[in-house]
Amino acid sequence: MARKGLVIVHTGPGKGKTTAALGLALRAVGQGMRVAMVQFIKGSWKYGELKAPEFLPGFEIQPMGRGFVNLGAPTPDPEDVALARETLDAARGKVLSGRYDLVILDEINYAVDYGLVPVEEVLRLIRDKPDPVHLVLTGRNARPEVVEVADLVTEMREVKHPFRAGIKAQKGIEF
Amino acid sequence: MARKGLVIVHTGPGKGKTTAALGLALRAVGQGMRVAMVQFIKGSWKYGELKAPEFLPGFEIQPMGRGFVNLGAPTPDPEDVALARETLDAARGKVLSGRYDLVILDEINYAVDYGLVPVEEVLRLIRDKPDPVHLVLTGRNARPEVVEVADLVTEMREVKHPFRAGIKAQKGIEF
Repeated sequence: MARKGLVIVHTGPGKGKTTAALGLALRAVGQGMRVAMVQFIKGSWKYGELKAPEFLPGFEIQPMGRGFVNLGAPTPDPEDVALARETLDAARGKVLSGRYDLVILDEINYAVDYGLVPVEEVLRLIRDKPDPVHLVLTGRNARPEVVEVADLVTEMREVKHPFRAGIKAQKGIEF
Repeated sequence: MARKGLVIVHTGPGKGKTTAALGLALRAVGQGMRVAMVQFIKGSWKYGELKAPEFLPGFEIQPMGRGFVNLGAPTPDPEDVALARETLDAARGKVLSGRYDLVILDEINYAVDYGLVPVEEVLRLIRDKPDPVHLVLTGRNARPEVVEVADLVTEMREVKHPFRAGIKAQKGIEF
Protein backbone atom coordinates (compact mmCIF):
# COMPACT_ATOMS: atom_id res chain seq x y z
CA MET A 1 0.00 0.00 0.00
CA ALA A 2 1.38 3.40 -0.95
CA ARG A 3 1.87 5.66 2.00
CA LYS A 4 -0.43 8.61 2.34
CA GLY A 5 1.58 11.48 3.73
CA LEU A 6 -0.38 13.47 6.28
CA VAL A 7 -0.58 17.24 6.58
CA ILE A 8 -0.54 17.87 10.32
CA VAL A 9 -1.10 21.22 12.02
CA HIS A 10 -0.24 22.05 15.64
CA THR A 11 -1.75 25.38 16.53
CA GLY A 12 -3.34 27.28 19.41
CA PRO A 13 -1.94 29.51 22.13
CA GLY A 14 -0.84 26.72 24.50
CA LYS A 15 2.48 24.94 24.91
CA GLY A 16 3.44 21.80 23.07
CA LYS A 17 3.19 22.69 19.39
CA THR A 18 6.91 22.45 18.58
CA THR A 19 7.43 19.93 21.37
CA ALA A 20 4.86 17.54 19.90
CA ALA A 21 6.54 17.96 16.50
CA LEU A 22 9.84 16.93 18.12
CA GLY A 23 8.03 13.92 19.58
CA LEU A 24 6.77 13.01 16.11
CA ALA A 25 10.36 13.30 14.86
CA LEU A 26 11.53 10.94 17.59
CA ARG A 27 8.80 8.42 16.81
CA ALA A 28 9.46 8.65 13.06
CA VAL A 29 13.20 8.13 13.53
CA GLY A 30 12.29 5.09 15.65
CA GLN A 31 10.58 3.76 12.52
CA GLY A 32 13.67 4.37 10.42
CA MET A 33 12.29 7.46 8.74
CA ARG A 34 14.27 10.52 7.70
CA VAL A 35 13.13 13.79 9.21
CA ALA A 36 13.95 17.43 8.56
CA MET A 37 12.85 20.29 10.79
CA VAL A 38 13.02 23.82 9.40
CA GLN A 39 12.59 26.58 11.95
CA PHE A 40 10.95 29.77 10.69
CA ILE A 41 11.11 31.65 13.97
CA LYS A 42 14.13 30.72 15.96
CA GLY A 43 13.81 31.02 19.70
CA SER A 44 17.42 31.72 20.59
CA TRP A 45 16.78 30.08 23.97
CA LYS A 46 15.73 26.68 22.59
CA TYR A 47 19.01 24.85 22.87
CA GLY A 48 17.82 21.41 23.94
CA GLU A 49 16.33 20.50 20.59
CA LEU A 50 19.33 21.74 18.61
CA LYS A 51 21.28 18.84 20.09
CA ALA A 52 18.72 16.35 18.79
CA PRO A 53 20.50 15.66 15.47
CA GLU A 54 23.48 14.43 17.48
CA PHE A 55 21.31 11.65 18.86
CA LEU A 56 18.75 10.97 16.19
CA PRO A 57 19.91 9.17 13.07
CA GLY A 58 18.18 10.65 10.05
CA PHE A 59 17.07 13.83 11.80
CA GLU A 60 18.23 17.22 10.53
CA ILE A 61 17.36 20.57 11.95
CA GLN A 62 17.77 23.90 10.20
CA PRO A 63 17.36 26.91 12.44
CA MET A 64 16.97 30.35 10.93
CA GLY A 65 20.15 32.30 10.41
CA ARG A 66 19.54 34.70 13.24
CA GLY A 67 17.61 34.98 16.46
CA PHE A 68 14.00 35.66 17.25
CA VAL A 69 12.34 38.17 14.94
CA ASN A 70 11.35 41.48 16.44
CA LEU A 71 7.88 40.51 17.48
CA GLY A 72 7.25 43.89 19.01
CA ALA A 73 7.19 45.71 15.67
CA PRO A 74 3.80 46.44 14.07
CA THR A 75 5.13 45.35 10.66
CA PRO A 76 7.91 42.86 10.01
CA ASP A 77 11.47 43.99 9.37
CA PRO A 78 12.34 43.58 5.63
CA GLU A 79 15.40 41.61 6.68
CA ASP A 80 13.15 39.11 8.48
CA VAL A 81 10.90 38.87 5.42
CA ALA A 82 13.93 38.13 3.23
CA LEU A 83 15.18 35.54 5.68
CA ALA A 84 11.74 33.92 5.87
CA ARG A 85 11.73 33.72 2.07
CA GLU A 86 15.11 31.95 2.14
CA THR A 87 13.82 29.62 4.84
CA LEU A 88 10.70 28.84 2.81
CA ASP A 89 12.82 28.10 -0.26
CA ALA A 90 15.01 25.78 1.81
CA ALA A 91 11.90 24.08 3.21
CA ARG A 92 10.44 23.68 -0.28
CA GLY A 93 13.69 22.12 -1.45
CA LYS A 94 13.61 19.61 1.38
CA VAL A 95 9.95 18.71 0.87
CA LEU A 96 10.36 18.18 -2.88
CA SER A 97 13.75 16.42 -2.63
CA GLY A 98 12.30 13.01 -1.75
CA ARG A 99 15.07 12.67 0.84
CA TYR A 100 12.73 13.04 3.82
CA ASP A 101 9.70 11.11 5.01
CA LEU A 102 8.66 13.86 7.40
CA VAL A 103 9.33 17.59 7.17
CA ILE A 104 8.49 19.86 10.10
CA LEU A 105 7.85 23.52 9.23
CA ASP A 106 8.29 24.91 12.71
CA GLU A 107 6.44 28.16 13.49
CA ILE A 108 5.40 28.57 9.87
CA ASN A 109 1.83 29.38 10.93
CA TYR A 110 3.14 32.16 13.08
CA ALA A 111 5.41 33.37 10.27
CA VAL A 112 2.32 33.62 8.04
CA ASP A 113 0.30 35.32 10.74
CA TYR A 114 3.05 37.86 11.29
CA GLY A 115 3.33 38.61 7.57
CA LEU A 116 6.71 36.99 6.94
CA VAL A 117 5.42 34.27 4.62
CA PRO A 118 2.46 34.54 2.17
CA VAL A 119 -0.17 31.91 2.96
CA GLU A 120 -0.45 31.17 -0.79
CA GLU A 121 3.14 29.91 -0.72
CA VAL A 122 2.32 27.56 2.14
CA LEU A 123 -0.73 26.24 0.30
CA ARG A 124 1.40 25.76 -2.83
CA LEU A 125 3.99 23.81 -0.86
CA ILE A 126 1.29 21.55 0.59
CA ARG A 127 -0.19 21.05 -2.89
CA ASP A 128 3.18 20.27 -4.48
CA LYS A 129 4.52 17.90 -1.83
CA PRO A 130 5.19 14.33 -2.95
CA ASP A 131 2.33 12.06 -1.84
CA PRO A 132 4.26 9.98 0.72
CA VAL A 133 5.80 12.95 2.56
CA HIS A 134 4.34 13.84 5.95
CA LEU A 135 4.27 17.59 6.67
CA VAL A 136 3.92 19.14 10.11
CA LEU A 137 3.15 22.85 10.37
CA THR A 138 3.42 24.40 13.80
CA GLY A 139 2.66 27.81 15.24
CA ARG A 140 -0.26 29.71 16.66
CA ASN A 141 -3.00 31.29 14.56
CA ALA A 142 -2.93 28.75 11.72
CA ARG A 143 -4.87 30.23 8.82
CA PRO A 144 -8.28 28.69 8.06
CA GLU A 145 -7.09 27.95 4.50
CA VAL A 146 -4.28 25.82 5.93
CA VAL A 147 -6.61 24.05 8.38
CA GLU A 148 -8.94 23.40 5.46
CA VAL A 149 -6.34 21.41 3.50
CA ALA A 150 -4.80 19.68 6.53
CA ASP A 151 -5.56 16.09 7.53
CA LEU A 152 -4.95 16.38 11.26
CA VAL A 153 -5.25 19.59 13.24
CA THR A 154 -4.67 19.89 16.97
CA GLU A 155 -5.11 23.02 18.98
CA MET A 156 -3.02 23.38 22.12
CA ARG A 157 -4.96 25.31 24.73
CA GLU A 158 -3.29 26.81 27.77
CA VAL A 159 -5.12 25.77 30.91
CA LYS A 160 -2.45 26.86 33.36
CA HIS A 161 0.99 28.40 32.89
CA PRO A 162 3.77 28.60 35.47
CA PHE A 163 5.03 32.02 34.32
CA ARG A 164 1.73 33.40 35.53
CA ALA A 165 2.61 32.08 38.99
CA GLY A 166 6.03 33.74 38.81
CA ILE A 167 7.99 30.57 38.08
CA LYS A 168 10.91 31.09 35.70
CA ALA A 169 11.51 29.18 32.47
CA GLN A 170 13.20 25.87 33.26
CA LYS A 171 16.19 24.49 31.37
CA GLY A 172 15.40 21.21 29.63
CA ILE A 173 11.69 21.92 29.71
CA GLU A 174 11.14 25.31 28.18
CA PHE A 175 14.43 25.37 26.26
CA MET B 1 19.68 28.79 41.96
CA ALA B 2 17.98 25.56 42.96
CA ARG B 3 15.90 24.10 40.19
CA LYS B 4 12.17 24.16 40.60
CA GLY B 5 10.79 20.97 39.14
CA LEU B 6 7.58 21.55 37.25
CA VAL B 7 4.44 19.45 37.35
CA ILE B 8 3.21 19.41 33.78
CA VAL B 9 -0.10 17.98 32.56
CA HIS B 10 -0.96 17.18 28.94
CA THR B 11 -4.64 16.40 28.72
CA GLY B 12 -7.63 16.80 26.41
CA PRO B 13 -9.14 14.61 23.71
CA GLY B 14 -6.77 15.69 20.92
CA LYS B 15 -3.52 14.21 19.66
CA GLY B 16 -0.11 15.17 20.94
CA LYS B 17 -0.23 14.45 24.66
CA THR B 18 2.30 11.60 24.67
CA THR B 19 4.01 13.00 21.60
CA ALA B 20 4.70 16.32 23.32
CA ALA B 21 6.03 14.41 26.33
CA LEU B 22 8.44 12.62 23.98
CA GLY B 23 9.46 16.01 22.63
CA LEU B 24 10.15 17.20 26.17
CA ALA B 25 12.26 14.08 26.70
CA LEU B 26 14.24 14.88 23.56
CA ARG B 27 14.80 18.48 24.63
CA ALA B 28 15.76 17.44 28.17
CA VAL B 29 18.25 14.87 26.89
CA GLY B 30 19.68 17.65 24.73
CA GLN B 31 20.37 19.49 27.98
CA GLY B 32 22.12 16.48 29.47
CA MET B 33 19.20 15.50 31.69
CA ARG B 34 18.16 11.98 32.61
CA VAL B 35 14.63 11.04 31.67
CA ALA B 36 12.36 8.11 32.51
CA MET B 37 9.03 7.44 30.85
CA VAL B 38 6.63 5.03 32.54
CA GLN B 39 3.70 3.95 30.40
CA PHE B 40 0.48 3.19 32.28
CA ILE B 41 -1.57 2.23 29.25
CA LYS B 42 0.55 0.64 26.62
CA GLY B 43 -0.62 1.03 23.07
CA SER B 44 0.75 -2.10 21.46
CA TRP B 45 0.93 -0.20 18.16
CA LYS B 46 3.25 2.55 19.37
CA TYR B 47 6.57 1.10 18.33
CA GLY B 48 8.41 4.19 17.18
CA GLU B 49 8.95 5.59 20.63
CA LEU B 50 10.10 2.26 22.07
CA LYS B 51 13.23 2.64 19.94
CA ALA B 52 13.97 6.03 21.48
CA PRO B 53 16.22 4.72 24.29
CA GLU B 54 18.52 3.32 21.61
CA PHE B 55 19.15 6.87 20.42
CA LEU B 56 18.73 9.04 23.47
CA PRO B 57 21.44 8.90 26.10
CA GLY B 58 19.89 9.06 29.55
CA PHE B 59 16.37 8.15 28.37
CA GLU B 60 14.63 5.07 29.71
CA ILE B 61 11.19 3.84 28.84
CA GLN B 62 9.17 1.32 30.80
CA PRO B 63 6.10 0.06 29.01
CA MET B 64 3.49 -1.89 30.90
CA GLY B 65 3.93 -5.63 30.95
CA ARG B 66 1.08 -6.31 28.58
CA GLY B 67 -0.91 -4.59 25.88
CA PHE B 68 -3.71 -2.12 25.91
CA VAL B 69 -6.17 -2.58 28.75
CA ASN B 70 -9.66 -3.67 27.85
CA LEU B 71 -11.14 -0.23 27.44
CA GLY B 72 -14.47 -1.65 26.37
CA ALA B 73 -15.27 -3.06 29.81
CA PRO B 74 -17.52 -0.99 32.12
CA THR B 75 -15.19 -1.71 35.07
CA PRO B 76 -11.48 -2.46 34.90
CA ASP B 77 -10.17 -6.01 34.94
CA PRO B 78 -8.58 -6.81 38.37
CA GLU B 79 -5.46 -7.92 36.53
CA ASP B 80 -5.18 -4.48 34.96
CA VAL B 81 -5.66 -2.85 38.37
CA ALA B 82 -2.88 -5.01 39.83
CA LEU B 83 -0.62 -4.16 36.92
CA ALA B 84 -1.37 -0.47 37.25
CA ARG B 85 -0.47 -0.70 40.94
CA GLU B 86 2.88 -2.27 40.01
CA THR B 87 3.43 0.42 37.41
CA LEU B 88 2.63 3.14 39.93
CA ASP B 89 5.07 1.63 42.43
CA ALA B 90 7.75 1.51 39.75
CA ALA B 91 7.02 5.14 38.83
CA ARG B 92 7.17 6.18 42.47
CA GLY B 93 10.52 4.45 42.82
CA LYS B 94 11.88 6.33 39.81
CA VAL B 95 10.56 9.70 40.95
CA LEU B 96 11.98 9.33 44.46
CA SER B 97 15.28 7.77 43.35
CA GLY B 98 16.96 11.05 42.47
CA ARG B 99 18.31 9.35 39.35
CA TYR B 100 16.07 11.26 36.95
CA ASP B 101 15.58 14.94 36.21
CA LEU B 102 12.33 14.32 34.36
CA VAL B 103 9.82 11.50 34.82
CA ILE B 104 6.95 11.07 32.37
CA LEU B 105 3.89 9.25 33.69
CA ASP B 106 2.34 8.41 30.37
CA GLU B 107 -1.45 7.97 30.30
CA ILE B 108 -1.64 8.16 34.09
CA ASN B 109 -4.57 10.60 33.84
CA TYR B 110 -6.44 8.09 31.77
CA ALA B 111 -5.50 5.29 34.19
CA VAL B 112 -7.05 7.36 37.00
CA ASP B 113 -10.11 8.18 34.93
CA TYR B 114 -10.62 4.53 34.10
CA GLY B 115 -10.30 3.50 37.75
CA LEU B 116 -6.94 1.74 37.51
CA VAL B 117 -5.09 4.17 39.77
CA PRO B 118 -6.53 6.10 42.77
CA VAL B 119 -6.15 9.86 42.27
CA GLU B 120 -4.97 10.15 45.90
CA GLU B 121 -1.91 8.09 44.99
CA VAL B 122 -1.10 10.45 42.14
CA LEU B 123 -1.47 13.47 44.42
CA ARG B 124 0.76 11.78 46.99
CA LEU B 125 3.42 11.10 44.35
CA ILE B 126 3.32 14.75 43.26
CA ARG B 127 3.56 15.88 46.90
CA ASP B 128 6.47 13.55 47.70
CA LYS B 129 8.58 14.19 44.60
CA PRO B 130 12.00 15.74 45.21
CA ASP B 131 11.90 19.48 44.47
CA PRO B 132 14.16 19.48 41.38
CA VAL B 133 12.33 16.64 39.57
CA HIS B 134 10.09 17.59 36.66
CA LEU B 135 6.98 15.43 36.33
CA VAL B 136 4.86 15.10 33.20
CA LEU B 137 1.43 13.47 33.48
CA THR B 138 -0.32 12.67 30.23
CA GLY B 139 -3.74 11.33 29.33
CA ARG B 140 -7.22 12.61 28.72
CA ASN B 141 -9.63 13.60 31.49
CA ALA B 142 -7.03 14.82 33.98
CA ARG B 143 -8.75 15.16 37.36
CA PRO B 144 -9.38 18.70 38.63
CA GLU B 145 -7.38 17.86 41.78
CA VAL B 146 -4.36 17.09 39.59
CA VAL B 147 -4.83 20.23 37.50
CA GLU B 148 -5.07 22.18 40.76
CA VAL B 149 -1.59 21.14 41.95
CA ALA B 150 0.07 21.27 38.52
CA ASP B 151 2.24 24.17 37.34
CA LEU B 152 1.61 23.87 33.62
CA VAL B 153 -1.47 22.36 32.06
CA THR B 154 -2.12 22.10 28.34
CA GLU B 155 -5.25 20.73 26.77
CA MET B 156 -4.93 19.18 23.34
CA ARG B 157 -8.10 19.81 21.38
CA GLU B 158 -8.94 17.88 18.23
CA VAL B 159 -9.82 20.27 15.44
CA LYS B 160 -9.61 17.73 12.63
CA HIS B 161 -8.71 14.05 12.56
CA PRO B 162 -7.79 12.00 9.49
CA PHE B 163 -9.51 8.83 10.71
CA ARG B 164 -12.76 10.73 10.32
CA ALA B 165 -11.87 11.14 6.66
CA GLY B 166 -11.15 7.43 6.33
CA ILE B 167 -7.36 7.73 6.31
CA LYS B 168 -5.59 4.88 8.08
CA ALA B 169 -3.09 5.27 10.95
CA GLN B 170 0.32 6.02 9.51
CA LYS B 171 3.54 4.34 10.60
CA GLY B 172 6.01 6.79 12.13
CA ILE B 173 3.25 9.29 12.87
CA GLU B 174 0.57 7.51 14.82
CA PHE B 175 2.83 4.72 16.02
